[in-house]
Amino acid sequence: MIRIFGIKYDGLIKKGDNLAKITIESLRRNGVEVENRDVVTLTHVAVSKALGYTIRLSEVKPSPLAVALADRLRKPPEEVEIILRESREIVRLSGGRIITRNRGGIVCANSGIDLSNVDGGLSMAFQPRNPDRVARKIRKQFLDENVEVGVIITDSFERPFRMGQVNMAIGCAGVAPIRDLRGKTDLFGYVLRFKQMAIVDELAAASELVTGSSSEGFIGALVKGYQYDFSDDGVKSILRSRKTDLFL
Amino acid sequence: MIRIFGIKYDGLIKKGDNLAKITIESLRRNGVEVENRDVVTLTHVAVSKALGYTIRLSEVKPSPLAVALADRLRKPPEEVEIILRESREIVRLSGGRIITRNRGGIVCANSGIDLSNVDGGLSMAFQPRNPDRVARKIRKQFLDENVEVGVIITDSFERPFRMGQVNMAIGCAGVAPIRDLRGKTDLFGYVLRFKQMAIVDELAAASELVTGSSSEGFIGALVKGYQYDFSDDGVKSILRSRKTDLFL
Repeated sequence: MIRIFGIKYDGLIKKGDNLAKITIESLRRNGVEVENRDVVTLTHVAVSKALGYTIRLSEVKPSPLAVALADRLRKPPEEVEIILRESREIVRLSGGRIITRNRGGIVCANSGIDLSNVDGGLSMAFQPRNPDRVARKIRKQFLDENVEVGVIITDSFERPFRMGQVNMAIGCAGVAPIRDLRGKTDLFGYVLRFKQMAIVDELAAASELVTGSSSEGFIGALVKGYQYDFSDDGVKSILRSRKTDLFL
Repeated sequence: MIRIFGIKYDGLIKKGDNLAKITIESLRRNGVEVENRDVVTLTHVAVSKALGYTIRLSEVKPSPLAVALADRLRKPPEEVEIILRESREIVRLSGGRIITRNRGGIVCANSGIDLSNVDGGLSMAFQPRNPDRVARKIRKQFLDENVEVGVIITDSFERPFRMGQVNMAIGCAGVAPIRDLRGKTDLFGYVLRFKQMAIVDELAAASELVTGSSSEGFIGALVKGYQYDFSDDGVKSILRSRKTDLFL
């Protein structure tokens, strides 16, 4: 049996905040202890605010390209400027939508920048450029509090083929992103040829079931009872390149 | 707090089995009661076996097209024949991989047919052609046992941009596939413009955290404590057409 608890924080995350301490204390206030081998997922907006990865729209000077695109995308030029600045490659630009590979290597709409839950639309939060390293740092913060957990930084994304967004991992530490069942046998002894579960994305998706409400101040989720393997491979290890992807 | 229990079944699912009864009895044996407003997820292989949606490879006569493709895909011609038979459209055919839109409208590799956990590689299970209707039927089976649940039929899929498979919904009943937060305000009163959580896919992903092991006979999962809206819109309502998809 797996249990998932929302990490509710009544304050506002500020630059320099220790997210491990905030997580442990917020959960404790609700009678829940973070224990060894738990998984902690944190939303990228909470992480980006703690790291100071935010920028005020009023401080952004849009490039001519951003100004030209802003009209087409029906977004403020300042927002488009940040989308371009955080991108490494434009994957699709069509019908008012822009899909990029961002600096962290994640393929998503708008380079994964966020206006919501930052400060009411005046500032944007952007994703960490090396989210796996940030996850390792936060994992270290937990170790400093004497608890060994897997850490996943999440963001919710549109995806091809289906409407609606799903929460996914953008960075992880201490938890192997893939559970590899290739070579294992099924109920009948048939050898599985393809089965590789992307468990960090499944843990991220599961987390949004408790963090999902827009205005209730959840910064992430605590997952108890899930057995995983240790690894610091990170989310980077499961990102496809153009060469291995049929849709890029 | 959300709790997720694996539905472990020691027997083998046969054509005609009542999955609601099996679910309720299997969980009860482990001290867990299915209650109103729970969500039950069932793997498509269990569902297809109960419906008799399986076919013995030895009974399949491959078409010339299937024979020609078999070499390229490095699969038995009989398997390729079923992939083609279950497809409505070939989306990608590249590097030994075939992505189709299957008869149920789902875009996935190999039309979503499965060799594993059927009978040791002799037969294949294919997805229901109308998975939402099947989900409604199973929901009715639960109602006949006096419990009102949301039902999700799941399958695990490769996806663009990332390696590894993630479990997703192919059909659902009694649970609204999308939780629409557009128009709601965030922590700061900023109005959310895009947020539509694909919660049936997140529930499916969460389920595989307990059903994932290949050889332990889990047919699905029971989710307790998740608040959802009622709807019979089904998964069909969130499938993108070519026109609204940037990657088809």
